[in-house]
Amino acid sequence: MNLLENLHWRYATKKMNGAKVPQEKLDYILEAARMAPSSSGLQPFKIIVSDKALLEKVKGIAYNQSQITDCSHLLVFAAWEGYSDEKITNVFNYIMDERALPRNTMDDYKKIILGLYEASGPEWQAHHAAKQSYIAFAMALAAAAEQKVDATPIEGFVNEKLDILLRLNENGYKSTVIMPLGYRETEKDWLVNMKKVRTPKEAFITEMAIEDAADTDEVPMDLDPDDFIQK
Amino acid sequence: MNLLENLHWRYATKKMNGAKVPQEKLDYILEAARMAPSSSGLQPFKIIVSDKALLEKVKGIAYNQSQITDCSHLLVFAAWEGYSDEKITNVFNYIMDERALPRNTMDDYKKIILGLYEASGPEWQAHHAAKQSYIAFAMALAAAAEQKVDATPIEGFVNEKLDILLRLNENGYKSTVIMPLGYRETEKDWLVNMKKVRTPKEAFITEMAIEDAADTDEVPMDLDPDDFIQK
Repeated sequence: MNLLENLHWRYATKKMNGAKVPQEKLDYILEAARMAPSSSGLQPFKIIVSDKALLEKVKGIAYNQSQITDCSHLLVFAAWEGYSDEKITNVFNYIMDERALPRNTMDDYKKIILGLYEASGPEWQAHHAAKQSYIAFAMALAAAAEQKVDATPIEGFVNEKLDILLRLNENGYKSTVIMPLGYRETEKDWLVNMKKVRTPKEAFITEMAIEDAADTDEVPMDLDPDDFIQK
Repeated sequence: MNLLENLHWRYATKKMNGAKVPQEKLDYILEAARMAPSSSGLQPFKIIVSDKALLEKVKGIAYNQSQITDCSHLLVFAAWEGYSDEKITNVFNYIMDERALPRNTMDDYKKIILGLYEASGPEWQAHHAAKQSYIAFAMALAAAAEQKVDATPIEGFVNEKLDILLRLNENGYKSTVIMPLGYRETEKDWLVNMKKVRTPKEAFITEMAIEDAADTDEVPMDLDPDDFIQK
């Protein structure tokens, strides 16, 4: 099955049967998330795999959704609460070391993105880091479907409370989205046989021709292009 | 090749050769994005496929990154600038109609999410809708890699200016991220032979046991669980 077939196979599983996902499948799913791209390669997020004993507490924080305790493993995606020179420098140093390049190779670029992030404020930074975690989250969903492991994308939980429970707040992280992994209990899942509905193609895709575009010659840029391009 | 192998094959292509991506591959990539899941199934985003003649203008808005004009097709992901009763009702009505269910089936749930969105404010709403587009963006990246089509995830552009150019602002959308699709020009791409570097597994994955968790019994919930669960 190709990706598109896997996307048709998967659905937001509402009822799981408690069966265990083999370790090699879990590892594959986590590795797909780890290999996901992110803005400037910063990967400003990580994944917490919750102990089974913790799930009852998480369930209470996630409005008692049954998949939290009926799953095999719960993945919690958590993103940096903000950017800093130190955090970015640590990542860039690691990348340069791995590529056997001088550590100052990306200094100009680093200054530009740090300036952009600082100008955008702490709330924007948290959302920006969270967005990167959604790319990895999607890769994990696609990987789970490929492995025929069911998964439920869940945003319905009290982020701040989960952050406290998992001590994310003490470590500069915020939870973004969670994913129970397991196997569907077909007989008891109201969604499993429902038609998958998506925005019709005609409404989802817009082809834009130059005649339809607006004139932006007088609209200012917020950065000098020459400053931005990666040296 | 499986998803993980495809993720190793792909990279943020810095130099493209101008070759054309066949229509069926483009369609496959767009369809993978369309089938991506989203919060409450709202799919608060769409994709604009830019006319070739428009790309020179977009390039100027994207700090002259060469892929914008050397690509075959440019995908612009654009998310709702905010949520409203009307927008959500339209989607839910469509889903209920497609499933042959009464239109009021999800009314209670709709009230809850609308209340949450309104309480979170317009900036949060735009970020939340944008996050959903990142899931579809990731599915398009994975689909492109599966089709051996190169793609570059690009956030480096002036969103407001692109919104004006593509008249997104006139239609209640904001650009979130763009993706040139095409083929790598290996000889002229500084990144193609660089080692792909990711956060080491030990730092990326944290296993959390109940003994390490904090006590949250006294931390309040912001919603009554009974109100939240989808009826």
